[in-house]
Amino acid sequence: MNSRLQFLLESLRKLLRRNAISRVKKVLKKSRNEDVASVMRYLDESQRHQVFDLLASDQDRSETLAELDENLFIEIISARPIEHMSQIIALMSVDDQTNLLSHLPEDLKLEILSLLKPEDMAELQEMLDYDRETAAGIMSTEFFSLNEDSTCAEAIIALQDAADVEMAFYIYVVDLQEKLTGVVSLRALLMNPPQTPLNQIKTQDTIFVTQDQDQEEVAKLAARYNLLALPVVDEKNKLLGIVTIDDVIDVIREEATEDILKMAGANETAYEDSSAWSNFRTRAPWLFATWMGGLAASILIGLYEHQLQKQVALAAFIPIVLGMGGNVGSQTATIIVRGLATGHVEYGLGAKYLVRELTIGGMLGIFYGVLLAIYSALRYQNDQALALALTVGLSIWASMFTAAIVGASTPLFFHRLKIDPAIATGPLVTTAVDVLGILVYFLFAQWFMGI
Amino acid sequence: MNSRLQFLLESLRKLLRRNAISRVKKVLKKSRNEDVASVMRYLDESQRHQVFDLLASDQDRSETLAELDENLFIEIISARPIEHMSQIIALMSVDDQTNLLSHLPEDLKLEILSLLKPEDMAELQEMLDYDRETAAGIMSTEFFSLNEDSTCAEAIIALQDAADVEMAFYIYVVDLQEKLTGVVSLRALLMNPPQTPLNQIKTQDTIFVTQDQDQEEVAKLAARYNLLALPVVDEKNKLLGIVTIDDVIDVIREEATEDILKMAGANETAYEDSSAWSNFRTRAPWLFATWMGGLAASILIGLYEHQLQKQVALAAFIPIVLGMGGNVGSQTATIIVRGLATGHVEYGLGAKYLVRELTIGGMLGIFYGVLLAIYSALRYQNDQALALALTVGLSIWASMFTAAIVGASTPLFFHRLKIDPAIATGPLVTTAVDVLGILVYFLFAQWFMGI
Repeated sequence: MNSRLQFLLESLRKLLRRNAISRVKKVLKKSRNEDVASVMRYLDESQRHQVFDLLASDQDRSETLAELDENLFIEIISARPIEHMSQIIALMSVDDQTNLLSHLPEDLKLEILSLLKPEDMAELQEMLDYDRETAAGIMSTEFFSLNEDSTCAEAIIALQDAADVEMAFYIYVVDLQEKLTGVVSLRALLMNPPQTPLNQIKTQDTIFVTQDQDQEEVAKLAARYNLLALPVVDEKNKLLGIVTIDDVIDVIREEATEDILKMAGANETAYEDSSAWSNFRTRAPWLFATWMGGLAASILIGLYEHQLQKQVALAAFIPIVLGMGGNVGSQTATIIVRGLATGHVEYGLGAKYLVRELTIGGMLGIFYGVLLAIYSALRYQNDQALALALTVGLSIWASMFTAAIVGASTPLFFHRLKIDPAIATGPLVTTAVDVLGILVYFLFAQWFMGI
Repeated sequence: MNSRLQFLLESLRKLLRRNAISRVKKVLKKSRNEDVASVMRYLDESQRHQVFDLLASDQDRSETLAELDENLFIEIISARPIEHMSQIIALMSVDDQTNLLSHLPEDLKLEILSLLKPEDMAELQEMLDYDRETAAGIMSTEFFSLNEDSTCAEAIIALQDAADVEMAFYIYVVDLQEKLTGVVSLRALLMNPPQTPLNQIKTQDTIFVTQDQDQEEVAKLAARYNLLALPVVDEKNKLLGIVTIDDVIDVIREEATEDILKMAGANETAYEDSSAWSNFRTRAPWLFATWMGGLAASILIGLYEHQLQKQVALAAFIPIVLGMGGNVGSQTATIIVRGLATGHVEYGLGAKYLVRELTIGGMLGIFYGVLLAIYSALRYQNDQALALALTVGLSIWASMFTAAIVGASTPLFFHRLKIDPAIATGPLVTTAVDVLGILVYFLFAQWFMGI
């Protein structure tokens, strides 16, 4: 948190504790609503409600509400008269309304919808029907479009009248059927003589997305071509809305968080929902793969009980053989999963990365295998010392090498099947690595130690 | 990769194989340089050089070069006459030049600098001195600033003359000492009468960053306030440059990738550098913590060799006890690390998250502990069956509970010390969890089984 927010938070806490209402009002009036929304997260529930009440106007309440975390805006909305809340929500932009309503419980959502103006309600209903993870789901319908025959001068006048288009970076040029035919930048408007028709200065090769394209692809396109907004069209090329750069940034952050949490076997509800019980329910199944893997390992070890009894030192090295394999496996899988997400690993380069990861896994295995063999030879100096050293050294190597194979090929395989590779990383890879590691270990033990 | 890029790549491959030079030229001419740069990654080295040669102009070469991955632009630059390359580099914007040169080997960098115009060289030298991870390191010096007394009409004329300012979203208003005093949006220019002085319509409360602020903070500010560009000032408030939204997006993606890879004990060189040897060198040290942890576990097990000999079934459950603990530990640590990075976990909420994670860890531990105790009781039906079931059940619980403590508190602790918590997650947490897990396991075994 930066010092600006910290100062705001501390002032609010202090003034609320002293019940200095008029000073709280003054502080809120001077602050940006984005900042107020940020610090509300750190206040307790009753303070949050007080702050929301003390905001200067319903416009400020609406802007603050739009920036709040999901669990907080649900808390605020549920605790207040629904008529007042629907007035506040009516002041938001359509994309903020859609986002907010889509996260509310069904009955609350319907109640608020019924209190809005009929035309707003119809538009919102349509927006709510789009999948939230697609271009249409994150688009804004407040864009600025003009007919191809309009001139620069007309565009400037039209722009001056359109006060409610929050971020007009581009003017979208459409034909009589409202089909998108090009884009004119605000700057091109200024640079050309007033009588120039938009048709002459519009871009020829417009980047656009269709309504059902995944939000991740939309974000990639905006980032690749450095665009401030991307037009969204339907299957007939009719312009439906635009995805603006601020939403693109949200998507990029969201997708990164989602991937990180998925790889660790958790998911985004980790933040949105603070109840331990619902977190237990989402995390427990992820651990089941680990549990099954552990059970398989224990059954395998059970099969070698007789050998272990004769050479109990073998048990001491089980954790290190599995641990090193597990770590290399998740390193490798993470590199491949993230590479697939960022576009570094793709399209025919899979084999190249696989070979590279196997080489690295093999090298790391040799290094740590030799290290452990030396330790083992120094630690256990009996007649089986050499055999034990060979067993543990080669097992570390084999475990790390197979881990690299599993870690690199699993996400590539899932990607080819069009299944999200982030899911493959955590539990699946470590489980496979555990079972293979144990197997390899006891095979080497049988071989070298003759037990 | 989207179908547009896939089509481009396949066309280029096919035409290059057939040596259809004029058709390759035609395809390249029709394509966006960002797309050409993207697909060059998937061509082989000689094809890459051919494509680069066949681009229509040095302007296109310069734009393509600016979009290439680090290892690829080094490959292109090193293999070509330095005089031509410096002409191409001279066509880039200053921030692209800085980014490119800062990644080149020292001698190549100096050689190219010496071939540039003296004034360009001086400016670049200054840019190269800034830390690459700060606001100044990612800023562009091509911004648009005007004196406070200028009018809207003057601003529009000045804007029409400034062809080289690639993305002018805002006009920065400065006083006679070039100190930043406010910002005027392009839109405000259009909305106000031509004679209005900028002073009257500029923002009062300007968001800016200082030159040495971390790029991650810059990105957070731009995202929080939905800004298209952020002005960068020195300690005297003099305007030095701007960070544009496209660079902000790059920072957000880079930082997410960096965090993900760090947590898995790898780092960003995983993509930039494709040599197995240098990857070995960066990844081997990360594994050392795991190796030490494994060694500590093996020494601990060695201390209980006598007990193991008597009750060899104990060895069979070591992997599952450690595995479950390790997984919960990294789930928890990942949730906290990502929460700290996105601002969900911060400022006084640490304790709240700690308690929640312990609760979840405890619940998961009870669930899987009971499950394993039942399995153990069914599998090993001897006179020690109950004692063994109690030992493994309680060990799973204790291992998962301590893992949650370690996983949640380690990143919070590092964050407080201002050390990047992403580093804490991987090796450190799993190692601590391994050692604690073994200890707890044998303590329970001694207690319940009397061995």
